[in-house]
Amino acid sequence: MSPLRHLISINDLSNAEIEQVFASATKYLSQLSNKDTPYRVSRSLKIATGRVLATLFYEPSTRTRLSFESAMLRLGGRTISSADPATSSAAKGESLADTARVVSSYADALVIRHPRDGAARLAAEYADIPVINGGDGSHEHPTQTLCDLYTLQREKGTFKGLNVVISGDLRGSRTIHSFVYALARFKAEIRLMPGGKGMELPAHVDWRLRNEFHSHPLPKAKIASANADIDAVYRTVDQPHQLALVTASDFVPRKEADIFYMTRFQKERWPEGKKDYLKIDSKFLRDRRYRNASVLHPLPRVGELDAELDALPRAAYFRQASYGVPIRMALIAGLLDLSRGSALEKFSSGFPKAQYPLHQQPRELGLCCVNPNCITHDKQEGPYAGNKFYLVQKDGLRLRCYYCETDIENAVVGNRKAKTYSAAGAAVKTGASLKDAVFFRSISDAARAGYKPQRKAQAAAG
Amino acid sequence: MSPLRHLISINDLSNAEIEQVFASATKYLSQLSNKDTPYRVSRSLKIATGRVLATLFYEPSTRTRLSFESAMLRLGGRTISSADPATSSAAKGESLADTARVVSSYADALVIRHPRDGAARLAAEYADIPVINGGDGSHEHPTQTLCDLYTLQREKGTFKGLNVVISGDLRGSRTIHSFVYALARFKAEIRLMPGGKGMELPAHVDWRLRNEFHSHPLPKAKIASANADIDAVYRTVDQPHQLALVTASDFVPRKEADIFYMTRFQKERWPEGKKDYLKIDSKFLRDRRYRNASVLHPLPRVGELDAELDALPRAAYFRQASYGVPIRMALIAGLLDLSRGSALEKFSSGFPKAQYPLHQQPRELGLCCVNPNCITHDKQEGPYAGNKFYLVQKDGLRLRCYYCETDIENAVVGNRKAKTYSAAGAAVKTGASLKDAVFFRSISDAARAGYKPQRKAQAAAG
Amino acid sequence: MSPLRHLISINDLSNAEIEQVFASATKYLSQLSNKDTPYRVSRSLKIATGRVLATLFYEPSTRTRLSFESAMLRLGGRTISSADPATSSAAKGESLADTARVVSSYADALVIRHPRDGAARLAAEYADIPVINGGDGSHEHPTQTLCDLYTLQREKGTFKGLNVVISGDLRGSRTIHSFVYALARFKAEIRLMPGGKGMELPAHVDWRLRNEFHSHPLPKAKIASANADIDAVYRTVDQPHQLALVTASDFVPRKEADIFYMTRFQKERWPEGKKDYLKIDSKFLRDRRYRNASVLHPLPRVGELDAELDALPRAAYFRQASYGVPIRMALIAGLLDLSRGSALEKFSSGFPKAQYPLHQQPRELGLCCVNPNCITHDKQEGPYAGNKFYLVQKDGLRLRCYYCETDIENAVVGNRKAKTYSAAGAAVKTGASLKDAVFFRSISDAARAGYKPQRKAQAAAG
Repeated sequence: MSPLRHLISINDLSNAEIEQVFASATKYLSQLSNKDTPYRVSRSLKIATGRVLATLFYEPSTRTRLSFESAMLRLGGRTISSADPATSSAAKGESLADTARVVSSYADALVIRHPRDGAARLAAEYADIPVINGGDGSHEHPTQTLCDLYTLQREKGTFKGLNVVISGDLRGSRTIHSFVYALARFKAEIRLMPGGKGMELPAHVDWRLRNEFHSHPLPKAKIASANADIDAVYRTVDQPHQLALVTASDFVPRKEADIFYMTRFQKERWPEGKKDYLKIDSKFLRDRRYRNASVLHPLPRVGELDAELDALPRAAYFRQASYGVPIRMALIAGLLDLSRGSALEKFSSGFPKAQYPLHQQPRELGLCCVNPNCITHDKQEGPYAGNKFYLVQKDGLRLRCYYCETDIENAVVGNRKAKTYSAAGAAVKTGASLKDAVFFRSISDAARAGYKPQRKAQAAAG
Repeated sequence: MSPLRHLISINDLSNAEIEQVFASATKYLSQLSNKDTPYRVSRSLKIATGRVLATLFYEPSTRTRLSFESAMLRLGGRTISSADPATSSAAKGESLADTARVVSSYADALVIRHPRDGAARLAAEYADIPVINGGDGSHEHPTQTLCDLYTLQREKGTFKGLNVVISGDLRGSRTIHSFVYALARFKAEIRLMPGGKGMELPAHVDWRLRNEFHSHPLPKAKIASANADIDAVYRTVDQPHQLALVTASDFVPRKEADIFYMTRFQKERWPEGKKDYLKIDSKFLRDRRYRNASVLHPLPRVGELDAELDALPRAAYFRQASYGVPIRMALIAGLLDLSRGSALEKFSSGFPKAQYPLHQQPRELGLCCVNPNCITHDKQEGPYAGNKFYLVQKDGLRLRCYYCETDIENAVVGNRKAKTYSAAGAAVKTGASLKDAVFFRSISDAARAGYKPQRKAQAAAG
Repeated sequence: MSPLRHLISINDLSNAEIEQVFASATKYLSQLSNKDTPYRVSRSLKIATGRVLATLFYEPSTRTRLSFESAMLRLGGRTISSADPATSSAAKGESLADTARVVSSYADALVIRHPRDGAARLAAEYADIPVINGGDGSHEHPTQTLCDLYTLQREKGTFKGLNVVISGDLRGSRTIHSFVYALARFKAEIRLMPGGKGMELPAHVDWRLRNEFHSHPLPKAKIASANADIDAVYRTVDQPHQLALVTASDFVPRKEADIFYMTRFQKERWPEGKKDYLKIDSKFLRDRRYRNASVLHPLPRVGELDAELDALPRAAYFRQASYGVPIRMALIAGLLDLSRGSALEKFSSGFPKAQYPLHQQPRELGLCCVNPNCITHDKQEGPYAGNKFYLVQKDGLRLRCYYCETDIENAVVGNRKAKTYSAAGAAVKTGASLKDAVFFRSISDAARAGYKPQRKAQAAAG
C-alpha cells in the first residue's frame, strides 16, 4: 500500500505530478472522443471496477459533483453521493471530522465541497482514504485549476510561461487563488483585473506569490496608462537576480495576452449583496491586448460573459468544461493507483514546496485563526479542529492556519513556562523551544493574559 | 454516427417509431419478468455498458427520475443525477443553456424536467447529446405518453382506434396534452371530461387536434344528454370526406369506453389554489358507459381515484406504472443506437409531421411568446432562448412558439425595410421575404412601433 | 421463488438468521479489508449484478443511506435513490403506499426511512419486493441493531449474555428500542441510564421485554446506591423458575459492564426542544463499573461523547460504523437470495416470535392507534393504512398497532351485532367471534357509540 495522498491545495501536487495527470488526461480524452471504437469497449472502463467514490457536497454544485461522478463511472467505478446539506447528518449536528471517518469505511476516495475555508484539510486529517477538495469556502478549488491549466495547454500548446489576464472577483473566488499559484509555478506573467470595487487579490495570496512562488508585482509605473483596468502584473522569476532585470526601468511587460480568464461575482462570499461588476463582450475583446487571447471561464457565468461570444473560435470555456471528466479520471486513477505506474506518490520533482514547522496551541490560550470563515470557527468542529499553525518566518513572525492557510502577520511569541513574551515579529527558534511557545496576536493580548516583556521579566528575575 | 435525435414532444416520434419502441419494450418486459432465467444473466444488461445518463430535475419527481435511472441501470449503463433545483448550479444563477452544453461533456444522454414550458426544447438546442423531455411545465411529457399508449396495447390488445375517456385537469396536465396528440394519431375517439371548472382542454391543443391531427369535435348536439359530464368528443378521420360522415346528423358516437384515463389536479399549475375536483369511485365506474373500461392514471394520485378501486382487475394504473422501466429502456436503446437495427432515426413513416418555416426576430422589436410560463420569459435564459416562431398559416396568420408551442393567432406581419404592416391575419409569402419580416401581436402594436399600413404607405410612397 | 421477506423489526429475524447474517458479514469484512488481493477481483463483486436497490429517505440521513448504497455497489449491484422528501412525489401528495407499489416495479429491494412510526410496515404491506426498515420514527432501526450486536461480537468475542449499559435518550431513540429486544433475546443483562429527565424506556418497550422476551427488571433495591444513575437493570431468564433466583434477596447483579452504549439526544422527537443531557468523558469511564467496557455509539454524536475518548483502544464506535457495509451486504444477499444457501427464509429456529391474532376494524367505529406519530394518522395514508391491531391477551386485553407496535391497554371489546360491550380488559375469544368484534379505548367511548354493557343488554333482552 502506498501512503495516503490527498489533494487539498494545488500545491499538494508537484509540477511533475501535474504533468503526469495531464498526460493521463490526454489519453482518456482521446478514448472518450473516439466515436469509431466506442468508449464502452475501452480498457479504462475497467480499472476502477469495484471501487466506490463518495461525494459529500455541503454547498450547491452541479458541475463539479457530476463531473467527478462521471469520471468515476467512466473508469468503471461507482459512486455514492450526499448532494444536499439539509438532508445529511450535518443537519443532525454531526461534525465533518466524524463524517469523514465514517465515510472512509464506505468508500475508497472522498470528494468534499464545503462553504468553510479549510474544511477539506480537516476532512483529510480524519479520513483513512484519499480526500479531494471540491472547493472549500474561498480557499482553493484545485481540480478546477487542473482543468484550467490543461485548457491552456490545449489552446496554446503549453501551459508554461504564458501571459494570462485574470478578471473578476479576485477576492472571493477560490478558483482564482488556486490558479494564480499554479500559474506562478509555471512562470506565467499574470495580470489582475478586479471585476469591481474591493475585489482585488487578498493580501495573503499576494504575499505567497512573492515569497513562496517567486512571482513579483511589477512597479505600478510599469503598468502603462493604457492598462488602467489592470490592478497588478506579476512576473515569475527563476533566480533572484532576474527580479532586478524585471523591475529595471527599461523593462517592458508583454502587451498581448495569451489567455483572458474571466470569473463570476461570488455572491455567496459577499454578505453585503450585489455589486457593480465588469461585463465582457466582443467589443471588449477586440482590444489589441486581448485580440489573440483564448477566453476561459470556470463557469457558471451569470451575465459577466456575453452570450454572443460563444460563437468565437477562441471562446474556450465550454472546451474547458469538457476537460473536467478526463482530468478527474486521471486524478482519481493517480490517487488510487489504479493503473500500473501512474500512482501520484511516485513523482515529487519540480516543485520545492515550502516546508514550515507546525505548532499547535490550546484554544483557551493565545490566538486563533483570524479568518472568521475558517472551519476552526465552526462550533461543531471545535473539538476536532486543532488550533494549529505553520510557523512562517520571512519578514517577521508570520503564522499560517493549518486549515485555511490564512496568515497572521507580526504575531507575538510567548513562553508558557516563563510567562514572558518577545517583541512583535521577533523570530522564533524552532525545535525544543517551540514546545513551550504560545502565540498572541499582539503585545496587548499577551499582556492581558498576564505575560511580561522578556527583558523586563529577565530584569525582574535578575 | 447518426444525427442527433431528441424526444421533446411525442410528435418527435413517427408512428412507426412508436411501434418500434413498443416492440422493443415488450422484449425487455419479458426479460424483466422472467424469474426462472434471472434478469441478471440477460444480454440486455450489457448493451449500455460504459454509457452515462444524466438526469437534471428542476421540479420534484420520484417516479419519472427513478424509472429513467432504473431503465439505464437495467441496460447496464450508469447514471448521474441532479435531483434538487436548490442544490444545483441554477441556484448560482446559471442558465439552462449553459448547463445543457456542459453536461453534454459528462454524459451520453440527458433527461430534463423543468417547471417552464419549452425548457426541454431549449436544452436540446444547446446540448450535443440526445435530450429527453421528462416533463416541461404544462407543455408535454412524452415518455409518460409512451407508457400510456403501451398500457392501452397491453390492456386491450391494441392502442389504435380505441374509445378513450380522459378526465381531470385537462388544462394543467402536460401528460394529457401529449396523450391526446398520440391518441388522435392512432385514430382514437376521445371524450373529454374536465375535472373541474376551467379545466377544459386549452384552445391551442384543440386547434392542433383539428388542424394537424384530423381529429374533430363532434357537434355538441351529438353528445347525448346522458353525457352531461362530457365536454367534447373528438373523432379522428383519415380523409376529409369522412368528416362529413362523422358530423352527419345520423351519426351516433360509440357509447362504451375502452379506457377511462384519470389525472390529478395539477395544483402547481394553478396559482389560485385548490378547486373542486371530480372523484372517481367504483360506483361511478359501474355506469354502463365505463363498465368495461380499463382504468388508467399516470400517478401520483391525490384523492381523485378511490383506493377501493385498486382491487378491480381493470384497475390498470399500477401495471401502467410498471411499464415505465421497459418503455424507457427501449427509448434509451433507440436514441443511443445501442443494439443493432434499433436506432430510432431509421424509421420515419406513418406520421406526416407538420412542417412550418421558422422565423426569428429580435426581442426588442415586435412580439414575444404570449405564454407567461414559457422558458423564453425566464430572465436567466433570455440571452440563449431566441425569439423564434413557426409560421403556421391555416385560417389566418398563426405563429407558434418554437419552445413551448403556444400559438399566437391573427398576428400582424410588418416589413422592417419598408416599415409597413399588413392587415391582421394576412398571409405571408415565405422565402426571401421572411428575412425582412417582423411580427406584431396587433395592428395597434405595429402602429405604436411606427409602422404604417401597407396600402397607405404605398400611397404615400407612390 | 422464495416467499417475500421484509426486515421491519429486529424481531422479523430469528436468532439463527442473525447468526447467519453475522457469518456472512465476517466473510465480506475480510474481503473488504484484504489489501493484498484487491477487493475488486473478489467474487462478491458480482453476486448482485443486474440487481437494483431503491433507497427512499423521507428524513435526513447520510450514514444509513450511504452505507446501504455502498453495500449494494460492493456486491456488484446498483442503486436508485430519493434522498430528499421535498423533491419527491410525496411533495405532490402521493401516499407512501402508492410509492411503494410503484417503486416495486423499478427495483429489486427497497430501503425506507420515514419520520412516522410504522411507515416501513406500511410500505412492506404494499410492496412486491423486500422492504428494509432504515428507521421509522421512534419505532425501530433494525439494521443499526445488527451492526451493534455484531460489534459486541467483534469486541468481546460473543454477543450473547453480556452486561450492557445503555445510556441516553431511551425514549426517543428507535435504535435503542430495537437493540434492547435483541439483547434480551441473547440473554444480556441490560442497565438503563437515561440521558436526561423523562428519557426513560417507554412503557410499551418495558412490557414487551418482560412479557415477550423474558427479560425482567430487578427490584429497585437490588440496584446499589452506587448506581444512582441507573434507572433499571433487566435480566433475561430462560425458564420461569430462574426469575425467582434472580429476584431473590441474596442475588447480586454483576458490577462490571462489558459494553457502554451511548446515544445522542433525539431532538427531532422532542418538540419541546433542548434538554439537559449526560456527557460522557474519559473521567466518567474510569469508574470501575465501566473501566473494561467497550464504548459504542450508533452515531452521529452531537457532544454527548467527548472527542478525547476517540484515542482509547476501547472506543469502538468508528469500528462499529465500519461494520455498516459488510452487515448490510450480508442482509441484502440474504433477502435477495444472491448466493447459494444464504437465503434468509431457510432459517427459523432459535426465536419463538410471539404470534397474536390480527384484527381490523373500520376507522369510523371504535379506537384508532393511540400513538399520534403513527403512520395511520398521516392524512395521505388514511385510505391505505388499515385500522389493524394484534390482540395481545396477557394481563388483560391489550391491543398492539399492526404498524407502529404501540400497545393499548385495557381496551374494551364490543359486539357489533348485539351492540354490547364487555368490561374493560375482559378477554376475547378469538376465531369466529372476532369477526363481529369492535374495540373501544374505554367504557365511556363504547357507551357514547350507543353500546350497552353485556349483562344489562342481556338482562334487557332476557
